[in-house]
Amino acid sequence: MSILCVGSVALDSVETPFAKAERVIGGSATYFTSAATLFSPVQMVGVVGDDYPLEKLAFLKERGADLSGIEQRPGESFFWAGKYHFDLNTRDTLETRLGVFADFDPVIPEALRASKYVFLGNIDPTLQHDVLDQVESPEVVACDTMNYWIEGKRSELNSLLERVQILLVNDEEARQLADEPNLLKASRWIRERGPEIVIVKKGEHGAILFADGWQFFVPGFPLEAVFDPTGAGDAFAGGFMGSLAQAGDLDRASLQRAMVFGSVMGSFTVERFSVDRLVDLTREEIDGRLRQFHAMTAFETQLEAV
Amino acid sequence: MSILCVGSVALDSVETPFAKAERVIGGSATYFTSAATLFSPVQMVGVVGDDYPLEKLAFLKERGADLSGIEQRPGESFFWAGKYHFDLNTRDTLETRLGVFADFDPVIPEALRASKYVFLGNIDPTLQHDVLDQVESPEVVACDTMNYWIEGKRSELNSLLERVQILLVNDEEARQLADEPNLLKASRWIRERGPEIVIVKKGEHGAILFADGWQFFVPGFPLEAVFDPTGAGDAFAGGFMGSLAQAGDLDRASLQRAMVFGSVMGSFTVERFSVDRLVDLTREEIDGRLRQFHAMTAFETQLEAV
Repeated sequence: MSILCVGSVALDSVETPFAKAERVIGGSATYFTSAATLFSPVQMVGVVGDDYPLEKLAFLKERGADLSGIEQRPGESFFWAGKYHFDLNTRDTLETRLGVFADFDPVIPEALRASKYVFLGNIDPTLQHDVLDQVESPEVVACDTMNYWIEGKRSELNSLLERVQILLVNDEEARQLADEPNLLKASRWIRERGPEIVIVKKGEHGAILFADGWQFFVPGFPLEAVFDPTGAGDAFAGGFMGSLAQAGDLDRASLQRAMVFGSVMGSFTVERFSVDRLVDLTREEIDGRLRQFHAMTAFETQLEAV
Repeated sequence: MSILCVGSVALDSVETPFAKAERVIGGSATYFTSAATLFSPVQMVGVVGDDYPLEKLAFLKERGADLSGIEQRPGESFFWAGKYHFDLNTRDTLETRLGVFADFDPVIPEALRASKYVFLGNIDPTLQHDVLDQVESPEVVACDTMNYWIEGKRSELNSLLERVQILLVNDEEARQLADEPNLLKASRWIRERGPEIVIVKKGEHGAILFADGWQFFVPGFPLEAVFDPTGAGDAFAGGFMGSLAQAGDLDRASLQRAMVFGSVMGSFTVERFSVDRLVDLTREEIDGRLRQFHAMTAFETQLEAV
């Protein structure tokens, strides 16, 4: 199954304790698609300015992405500049310029309106509603959001939850959305408002999937060096949705494996700047890391006789 | 195999956002033994004052603990008072009175000197050395420590590492000990100084075991309500060492299962004040939660044909 992905297509300037990258490709839709296309075809919808190096997205086309939904307009692309602190867990935003993204009004091309799998990247919930209005009969809608919308667009977000099967947020966002510090209770609050599945991302600590009567936990992959954490959450979403669309169902086993592929893709992403690590990544490397996750978490429940 | 455990036997006054407990039994050796005796016999060594309600440790005797190494002296027992903040992840120490623990000079009774499994709770590294000097030929020595000793007794701690097979610390302590923010590198630094196995406890985020060429990750168990986090780390150590001593080897499968039993025991401990939840806990409940951990982490590595 292919996935319709709507989100930001941006340019990022990133500074870490180790190095600096200037105006590299980024944005939620870019990271998502770079990860998801290693599993399933993706149709990307977004807007860029006339300064955008579209040729840098060419690798996505080669592995099955449809970029016809990316509109190029006169003006500047969405630009974000940030600087990570020493431990890479916190960062300062140095600059955000919305550019043509300020007037983003997603129009889903006719050919993409039959999409069954939809990923709504972290954009204004009003626009997320607009996207869903244009899709004929979506079956699996996953969505991300952030504190800015939770604070400023609460009612739009609440009604959006009714149209969503899977919410992917980080732990702070889950707590803020439900106004509840306990994640188990917070995820129940969210699930009562629509999504069958709530996925709480905890950065280096991994992610938890909360469903009806069961949970699934995947750790973060221990890395010698996290080079640049930007986009890890969107790459997680891409690995998760890509694997899920490839499975073609919401069975528990498919969701569990999708969680691990999510963490696998997040772990590769942070090894380099931008989507650099994902450009040449092979399915063999991905499956190899999946097996490493298995070795890192599997155990026998049966005690042998002693 | 039975385990020799040396550590604090204390009285705690604990305040959480939900309730208060006054002068309840606590201390690293108490939590450790309460958890470990559900798997293996434990010989406890410690000191208490004449104010200590030793009858409250009677349940430990009933399940195979040997308390002959607990010395009762005139004076006050080690007393700690603390107050947890709203999210239960941080706490303030309101009061610490060392009492008779200030002059603790652990004497291992003759009968216990042949112990093969030893747990050194978080006490002065000089005393941890003293204990090991008295044990004839220990095979598996596990040890805990804290920032106070890392800062104040660095050289004693470094030489102790050479005598230890398993170090159990939290993530901050591991980073501080190795002066290295990356946990993979920090654990390697530690392992190069002695311990084959380093276990990094991350509270609600679970724990990671680092060994030669492999790692194992266990999540924290998602609970509706964490009632009182006190002692969770020592109960983890108790479940881990109890299970390991029951297995009788350091095989990878035994270490993996011990990690899960550690997290299981930590998760039960925080459901009530003191060791209350562990007093009547059954092996059935423990195995039930082990299976819940399995359901929460197990996944199929093979993709079915789609």
